[in-house]
Amino acid sequence: MFNTMLQMKYIFIFLAFTSTVFGAYVIDSGRRRGINDIDVEGECSSLTAELIEEIKAYQPIVDEITNAIVNGKFSGDTWNALAEMTDKFGARMTGSKSLENAIDYMVDELKKAGLDNVHTENATVPHWERGYENCQMVSPRQAKINICGFGFTVGTLRGGLIADVVVVESFEEFDKLPEATVNGKIVLFVPEWQGYGKTVVYRSRAASVASKKGAVAALVRSITPYSIGSLHTGMQRYADDVQKKIPVAAVTVEDAYSMLRMYRRGEKITLHLEMEDKNLGDFVSRNTIAELAGESSTPVVVVSGHLDSWDIGVGAMDDGGGAFIAWKALHLLKRLNVKPPKRTIRAILWTGEEQGIVGAAEYEKQHKSREKEEFNFFIESDMGTFTPLGLDFSGNKEAECIFKEVLKLMAPLNATQFNSPIDAGPDIEQWSTRGFPAASLLNKNEKYFYYHHSAGDSMLVENSDDLDKNTALFAAAAYVIADLSVDMPKDIKD
Amino acid sequence: MFNTMLQMKYIFIFLAFTSTVFGAYVIDSGRRRGINDIDVEGECSSLTAELIEEIKAYQPIVDEITNAIVNGKFSGDTWNALAEMTDKFGARMTGSKSLENAIDYMVDELKKAGLDNVHTENATVPHWERGYENCQMVSPRQAKINICGFGFTVGTLRGGLIADVVVVESFEEFDKLPEATVNGKIVLFVPEWQGYGKTVVYRSRAASVASKKGAVAALVRSITPYSIGSLHTGMQRYADDVQKKIPVAAVTVEDAYSMLRMYRRGEKITLHLEMEDKNLGDFVSRNTIAELAGESSTPVVVVSGHLDSWDIGVGAMDDGGGAFIAWKALHLLKRLNVKPPKRTIRAILWTGEEQGIVGAAEYEKQHKSREKEEFNFFIESDMGTFTPLGLDFSGNKEAECIFKEVLKLMAPLNATQFNSPIDAGPDIEQWSTRGFPAASLLNKNEKYFYYHHSAGDSMLVENSDDLDKNTALFAAAAYVIADLSVDMPKDIKD
Repeated sequence: MFNTMLQMKYIFIFLAFTSTVFGAYVIDSGRRRGINDIDVEGECSSLTAELIEEIKAYQPIVDEITNAIVNGKFSGDTWNALAEMTDKFGARMTGSKSLENAIDYMVDELKKAGLDNVHTENATVPHWERGYENCQMVSPRQAKINICGFGFTVGTLRGGLIADVVVVESFEEFDKLPEATVNGKIVLFVPEWQGYGKTVVYRSRAASVASKKGAVAALVRSITPYSIGSLHTGMQRYADDVQKKIPVAAVTVEDAYSMLRMYRRGEKITLHLEMEDKNLGDFVSRNTIAELAGESSTPVVVVSGHLDSWDIGVGAMDDGGGAFIAWKALHLLKRLNVKPPKRTIRAILWTGEEQGIVGAAEYEKQHKSREKEEFNFFIESDMGTFTPLGLDFSGNKEAECIFKEVLKLMAPLNATQFNSPIDAGPDIEQWSTRGFPAASLLNKNEKYFYYHHSAGDSMLVENSDDLDKNTALFAAAAYVIADLSVDMPKDIKD
Repeated sequence: MFNTMLQMKYIFIFLAFTSTVFGAYVIDSGRRRGINDIDVEGECSSLTAELIEEIKAYQPIVDEITNAIVNGKFSGDTWNALAEMTDKFGARMTGSKSLENAIDYMVDELKKAGLDNVHTENATVPHWERGYENCQMVSPRQAKINICGFGFTVGTLRGGLIADVVVVESFEEFDKLPEATVNGKIVLFVPEWQGYGKTVVYRSRAASVASKKGAVAALVRSITPYSIGSLHTGMQRYADDVQKKIPVAAVTVEDAYSMLRMYRRGEKITLHLEMEDKNLGDFVSRNTIAELAGESSTPVVVVSGHLDSWDIGVGAMDDGGGAFIAWKALHLLKRLNVKPPKRTIRAILWTGEEQGIVGAAEYEKQHKSREKEEFNFFIESDMGTFTPLGLDFSGNKEAECIFKEVLKLMAPLNATQFNSPIDAGPDIEQWSTRGFPAASLLNKNEKYFYYHHSAGDSMLVENSDDLDKNTALFAAAAYVIADLSVDMPKDIKD
């Protein structure tokens, strides 16, 4: 995933934990009840007994979906399909031939799966390409420093640049440095890991911040809590008021702390930095769409993940897993031969997420005029597909009350936890923040940032049983919501 | 460490665990006793009450050493010194200028520490150098495959080689392949991780095995249980009867399994492999020696670790930590101003361990004629310097009985566990296997192979408190054994 919501990650985990420990049962009028019972009588008093009964009646179909996994009828299918796709195309960076080839392949797969209305919709995305990147320490000793440029970084001039290094641990420390100390130097930022949200700002802003005092390049510790010499890439943006765009890259946490210690000891560090990364202008990519046709074509329930990835690793976790549990949910329902739901379920495999959520933004623009009629509910997975815990929710109180009843059905998957309200996820938050009801996968993703945007993002991270459960969860939730007698309530802000 | 003992690792852990759970107290004649009590009355009946009392009387000095850590007098010293050395010299591969510079630096440091008889002793070691290494998948798709050549590998011809890949999961599977399937191909071995000892044979033997059926190169999954796109190097040897030496390198576990899946699906994989690695003949390196003079110069108690490392990562764990707790043990005793022990304590920082335990072998040869008189006891650390648990032991029963009494003194460090007999450790086993009594650090090294021979071998792996405790443990054990009224018993086989 790109960058936004994840500062919330530890809050989510904390909430999930507290809701389990403290929230499950509350003493009220002398009897123990589930927290949802209280909600029903309190905030959810508008929820009719009929609707509750209607939702409860979906338990058999949810059980059927779960059983298809538990009894192994479709077991392993999501993992195998994801492995085949990632093996075939590897990394799928926006603008690359491998992403476009993967999109063509997915169109074929979706058609082969017998899904409806399989097509792509164009999305113009920025095209940045990594070139040759190399960094050598030339003083106080000769050593190779592994680097990995951040998205949209400019390159160096041919032959690279040689400059001394200034090392800081924070923007605050940098702010206190006189311009003369920074001018003409490479600035290395070594912030302590304080969770993704607080730490990633160094990746996003390092080049812009350093440039303003005349730095010739910026380096940043890889944005990860754990490292085995691993490099983590990701987006960065030059601020609008930056006069000179300078190159910016990740170094390993290992090298970052070593250079920090050397600098603190007063040693002069000189690096030779060569980067041939390039911005190549616009590129037309595609969002990939397939549907499980319902009784009516709109409003639809969207289930989604992004197909594009960074160029190191193969994006099995970010976000191959999300994209595959989304379309496999439809495939699973198709193969189970369920009664068509009242509303259509639409799988969307976004493009251009890593380059700034561009594919989803284009899609939103293109569908804006009819969005109130077109969309009933949005679901996304972009924070890992580890063991599922439940679904986080965003939407108004009325929708939440319905959603919580639906979530109770997921007990066979042991996936009934949720937090609400949350920003739903990078690709769907442009709708959820404006009042569309939405949900995103809540899963045991404590190690997500070990692998995120690194060469470690591979099928080794993905577990076949977990992927099956996630597919079942998406299939069951999407089906029930798509088939309810009522639309999901929403309060749209324009 | 190089390769030998580690297949025993899980056995050690199991033994350590069982001795804690099952062994600590045993019902005997109706009363509970420590397992060592039983030994004293059983196998250790030769141990005199006087010697037991003598050993117990060392508790105050052991406490003093421990307190210097617990009260923080010398706290952090080992970590800081190790960080400074690794930052200054980085990787220290045998044959490199950085290793020889690090040796010069260590001689200065040992002298500055006020240690006695600081000097080096020459050791002729083989000199292999990594050159440019690159691997591109050219079919079925274009992709960079990260590789890392193994020690002593030959390079490819200039321009590299392009060949199809045959993938196997074991030597057994390889043995069944007809020569025609292998001839002219690159063989990729993807053995399942089954502990270091069972898995590392693929690194050591892949090139020799593959060459015999006409392969042009061999690749091996990195020898590690866990990967974040990490490459792990290490030694390999060409068998004497190999007709043609072929290049051999590690690939990441991620890429190995991806290519295995592709091969099993029947896809044709073609790689372009370029390696400019070179064997450069002999090189004179040095073992680095310092002493804490005792009342007599011999026999000595040796405490040791190796200073050389692989060329990726900085060898903070393998084996900077071992080398530093060894010499810092002497430094700590010096600064505590302890009464000189009866016997001299000698710190040895071995060279050339990673290239085949060559420094220690040369040292053994040079000291062979007077070894019985010269050596009382050997101590080594080369399996990590994580939280200490105790010391493993090798030697005859009489020596073990004394050793166990000494180990009881380490209760303040919570480091009284041991296994016996074990092969003591790569650099000292040439003595221990011939009957010299020896011990090696037992520590919580479950994650050792996450970092081993990889870019992840850095100061991030080392914990300051643990290093302090390990230094204290080495200092206390070496001091007590060096100062006993009796020599450590030994049965030497020539």
